[in-house]
Amino acid sequence: MVNCNKHFTVMMMNTYKVTFLPENKEVEVERGTTLMQAAEKAGVDINNLCGGEGLCGECRVQVVGGNARPDKHTLGFLSGEEIQKGFVLACQTKVEADLTVMVPAKSRAEQEKIMMGGSPVVYGEPEKVVLHRTRKVPVTSFDPIVKKVYLPLPEPTLKDNISDIDRITRELQKVMPFQNFEITLGCLQNLAETLRDSEWKVTATVARHHDNGRILKIENGDTSNRDYGLAVDVGTTTVVVQLVHIPTKKILGTKGSHNLQARYGEDVISRMVFACVRGTVDPVYKAVIANINNLTHALTSECRVKPEDINIIVAAGNTTMSHFLLNLKPCSIRLEPYVPTTSIYPQVLARELGIDISKQGILETLPSVASYVGGDIVAGVLACGMADRPEVRCLIDIGTNGEIVIGNNEWLVCCSASAGPAFEGAGARSGMRATAGAIEKVEIRDGILSYETIGRAKARGICGSGLIDVIYEMVRNGIIDQNGRFDTTRKDLRLLEDDGDPRYILAPALETETGEPITISEAEIANLMKSKGAVFAAIKSLADYVGMTFNQLTDIYVAGGFGSSLNIPKAIAIGLLPDVDVKRVHFIGNSSLTGARMSLLSIAAFEKTLDIARRMTNIELSNYPPFMNEFVAALFLPHTDQKLFPSVKYNL
Amino acid sequence: MVNCNKHFTVMMMNTYKVTFLPENKEVEVERGTTLMQAAEKAGVDINNLCGGEGLCGECRVQVVGGNARPDKHTLGFLSGEEIQKGFVLACQTKVEADLTVMVPAKSRAEQEKIMMGGSPVVYGEPEKVVLHRTRKVPVTSFDPIVKKVYLPLPEPTLKDNISDIDRITRELQKVMPFQNFEITLGCLQNLAETLRDSEWKVTATVARHHDNGRILKIENGDTSNRDYGLAVDVGTTTVVVQLVHIPTKKILGTKGSHNLQARYGEDVISRMVFACVRGTVDPVYKAVIANINNLTHALTSECRVKPEDINIIVAAGNTTMSHFLLNLKPCSIRLEPYVPTTSIYPQVLARELGIDISKQGILETLPSVASYVGGDIVAGVLACGMADRPEVRCLIDIGTNGEIVIGNNEWLVCCSASAGPAFEGAGARSGMRATAGAIEKVEIRDGILSYETIGRAKARGICGSGLIDVIYEMVRNGIIDQNGRFDTTRKDLRLLEDDGDPRYILAPALETETGEPITISEAEIANLMKSKGAVFAAIKSLADYVGMTFNQLTDIYVAGGFGSSLNIPKAIAIGLLPDVDVKRVHFIGNSSLTGARMSLLSIAAFEKTLDIARRMTNIELSNYPPFMNEFVAALFLPHTDQKLFPSVKYNL
Repeated sequence: MVNCNKHFTVMMMNTYKVTFLPENKEVEVERGTTLMQAAEKAGVDINNLCGGEGLCGECRVQVVGGNARPDKHTLGFLSGEEIQKGFVLACQTKVEADLTVMVPAKSRAEQEKIMMGGSPVVYGEPEKVVLHRTRKVPVTSFDPIVKKVYLPLPEPTLKDNISDIDRITRELQKVMPFQNFEITLGCLQNLAETLRDSEWKVTATVARHHDNGRILKIENGDTSNRDYGLAVDVGTTTVVVQLVHIPTKKILGTKGSHNLQARYGEDVISRMVFACVRGTVDPVYKAVIANINNLTHALTSECRVKPEDINIIVAAGNTTMSHFLLNLKPCSIRLEPYVPTTSIYPQVLARELGIDISKQGILETLPSVASYVGGDIVAGVLACGMADRPEVRCLIDIGTNGEIVIGNNEWLVCCSASAGPAFEGAGARSGMRATAGAIEKVEIRDGILSYETIGRAKARGICGSGLIDVIYEMVRNGIIDQNGRFDTTRKDLRLLEDDGDPRYILAPALETETGEPITISEAEIANLMKSKGAVFAAIKSLADYVGMTFNQLTDIYVAGGFGSSLNIPKAIAIGLLPDVDVKRVHFIGNSSLTGARMSLLSIAAFEKTLDIARRMTNIELSNYPPFMNEFVAALFLPHTDQKLFPSVKYNL
Repeated sequence: MVNCNKHFTVMMMNTYKVTFLPENKEVEVERGTTLMQAAEKAGVDINNLCGGEGLCGECRVQVVGGNARPDKHTLGFLSGEEIQKGFVLACQTKVEADLTVMVPAKSRAEQEKIMMGGSPVVYGEPEKVVLHRTRKVPVTSFDPIVKKVYLPLPEPTLKDNISDIDRITRELQKVMPFQNFEITLGCLQNLAETLRDSEWKVTATVARHHDNGRILKIENGDTSNRDYGLAVDVGTTTVVVQLVHIPTKKILGTKGSHNLQARYGEDVISRMVFACVRGTVDPVYKAVIANINNLTHALTSECRVKPEDINIIVAAGNTTMSHFLLNLKPCSIRLEPYVPTTSIYPQVLARELGIDISKQGILETLPSVASYVGGDIVAGVLACGMADRPEVRCLIDIGTNGEIVIGNNEWLVCCSASAGPAFEGAGARSGMRATAGAIEKVEIRDGILSYETIGRAKARGICGSGLIDVIYEMVRNGIIDQNGRFDTTRKDLRLLEDDGDPRYILAPALETETGEPITISEAEIANLMKSKGAVFAAIKSLADYVGMTFNQLTDIYVAGGFGSSLNIPKAIAIGLLPDVDVKRVHFIGNSSLTGARMSLLSIAAFEKTLDIARRMTNIELSNYPPFMNEFVAALFLPHTDQKLFPSVKYNL
């Protein structure tokens, strides 16, 4: 008995209470737990781009009650004032007392409204039911992968006593383009009862599966209007979910959030290393499933849709993200010869993966081309329509990777270059994703800086489109030179010396939500230059590879999560995009999401993605020697070769 | 605290210990539990043909320790001596004290060795891989539904870095007749690791699924020899499982047992009522799954096969049994217009149903024709080959239902008549299934009765083939008349008066295992006459329906669980089978099991079952007025119309 009590006392002494503000979420943890782990346990999402290595400094929190010792190795991330105020890095700080911790808005990996671009697609009705679908069916023909069909059935009689399932398929064959129908066991097990309870008036939910119809469920009565789908863009940095009402093709809502996998590493490589060193994809896989479930829950609550009425998800992501989504090990993607487990993903039941939609709902994942060219770029090619027409066009998708495609209805070549998440708002102290409060437009005129934020909210940070504007405006106004260095000879109140990394104030502390100034430093500008240089070098290398000049490209489509809009002339002027007639450059927003939605609503579009993936040839830039020269040449504003940017004049 | 203790005391007082002999299995149950329920909890299987209604008297047990009050309504099942010895009906006796109960061999629903008939099928190798399989492939072409293929793969290089799954399908396409391959998510999730751990030498297990190959698993190294399948006959009274080594087509073992569903009712109708009144198929479904798991376990232990190396089960059963097997509600099968949920059963993962074979192993269920003509009869038609040749033949399958098929390679008609389980050894006091100790042959010559038992064991009871012999020998020797009544004017020491139901002693108490005489009563003979009358009336009605005489039938195949052999001349002489040249009558044993095994080993055979089911026309005898007259006319030995049995002369 004595032993028992002693053990009890020891247990009590080792457990502490941590309260997270402003939500006032309380959690009990063992001594030595990090604040990051405590937050995870409490359900508070804190930014964690480096995977808890103390390298990114994104997880700053303020200890406002109790004592916590800041880790001395990470003091470099904090200013003296911050240290005094009790700021620490959550991932490096251990709980050794009861604590109250304030999580500032900046460190919060919370759900955000991502601005969605993408031109709306107008759907036509299918002309008629044809058994052998030809390639000619346009991708905008409305013919969803999962469709609900109301079936008022004739009651069986002694003369017509075929089995229940034969009665259903007999009717389905009249209205659907499938000869054979499969049925899941679960659906079959309730069939007899449902048919009789409904007095032979049921609604069948049917998915296309290979060339067959796959009956997912049979419901009592006419429920054909209760039919929803999700288009999902699984980005490295951001996950976006869009809720679509299938019968009306209407988008009911779109929500995005920080990819929770970020806690296991900022980029695909570090997440692959995390999973492969530990020998399990599980945490990384579960993180993206949590993302999708959270966003879906938020959307369904807001739109008053029942999750069990969502029958399909179409997801697009790069090859690694698609592997993580399906709980596949991506370890061989990372190493030569760069082999994924699969490029064409099987249709699976969403619940097999833990996704909370209809029990019989399915997940389709858009096909990849190669280890580093994924379904997101295939979706983009589908969305911009370049694979359907004879003129040669170009797609530039700037995500965490920059991906470029050039081609037409006969050929498609693509390449990808690591751009880093700079344009997605990561990697810079004031960077943020394109959501409410993000500075998205900047102008400096006669020495006066003005800006606009998304949603007209108080400024919280700056997103991709704002950063492009800033670089352009600073070089045009001589604040930085064409190498991206500050002109320290200028007298400018906005320019601060900050431990050898000069910073420029974009919004003073008084104007911001956090009470801290929004700034950009010389090192951060250098990062952006590397990003834009990598993207441009990839475009230039690919155009050279196919022997075309930029002016021979009929259209250039720019996709990415910069913001709700992108100032094309300024993007050209900093050397991110080729210097062609701006009328030929189109910002199409999140084309991965658009392509996923198109596939959801049209079997022809979905089949087109398989065709695009098959036709696309991938050029490995690491094996293409000219790329590195192009990259170095592009580390200048707009470019070391001024002839490539004839229209750009800074009037310096 | 007082309340708490009181509750505890009450609980203790309400719980009793029941010990079942001879296994000495102990179980604690609450006051008022029946002995049947206690036995179920203890894992002791007691016969229960009526579903616990106290109607069949098959669950006699002897209380040898403690006091149990016999239910007065069921005393009629027990002799005075039995009551004195402590015999009670387990289903009607409640536990109200600690008890020790002996379960006699006769009341035991234990595992038995069922004698299997069926002529062996010799398999040819497929000629070559052809993409479009024609109907011409013979059903004996060896081409199993699930096949293991060893694949030594070329390692990926930068020049050949297709995805892992593409690498596998590229090789599979060379050796398998499928253009497209599907893969299960589970298999995909381990693929990358298995390929690399195995140094690119793997074995793929592939199932035919519609027209595609469905990759079930990928194993490290060459495991192609570890490939087993189960053929299962799900009979109403008996479940038989056969273990087959697929690469060598060898039958490793066959085991059968009493269908555990019997505890929910003797026949399909009472089991359907049980399930439909309670609104759940669950207990009935679980019973047959337990049967299959128990038999499989016994077979795999005996043959030293790992259950995870069993990749496929092919099951054949009547429509209701097939519904129960897949946990489908059979309620509408029972009532006009007799509609099953499905006639063609989907390929399902065996584990979805709780069957303990390979996690990715599949179950195929042979198709039914109508509510009362199931996959067992389709399997029979496949097994006897009558659907392949132009001459008209007849199949008579005598199970709990008698099922008749007449036809050839162009047409097939069938009908079924309720025969009752008399020939399967149920419904008679001394009746038993065809297993060790069953009297299977009987002869009475010069007043002396001699018999043979299965396995030369001490007699335990009498099975179907023995009963046919008994009836024949008794009528030939004038012990019964042609109406099946005992000639009580004879002086015969074997004839006993037993409460108005005279009994004839087949084996005296001294010769039997149980120490009780094996007998047959006048009422039991009347039952057998009804069974044989129903079967013959069905054959006669169907032959009349198609306008043929018995002599126009090239061959007559007789299938069923009578025993290891069947005396055809005696079966004709009692009027069970038509009076044709005995050379044209063939006993083929359990043709349902043979057909299931053939389908397991040949896709052509499996596809043939679909063709047979599609082609077969079912005649509802309840809607065919001449049947009842035929039935009444057949209640005589051999038949009231002696002209139908010209060769039968009893020399009375």
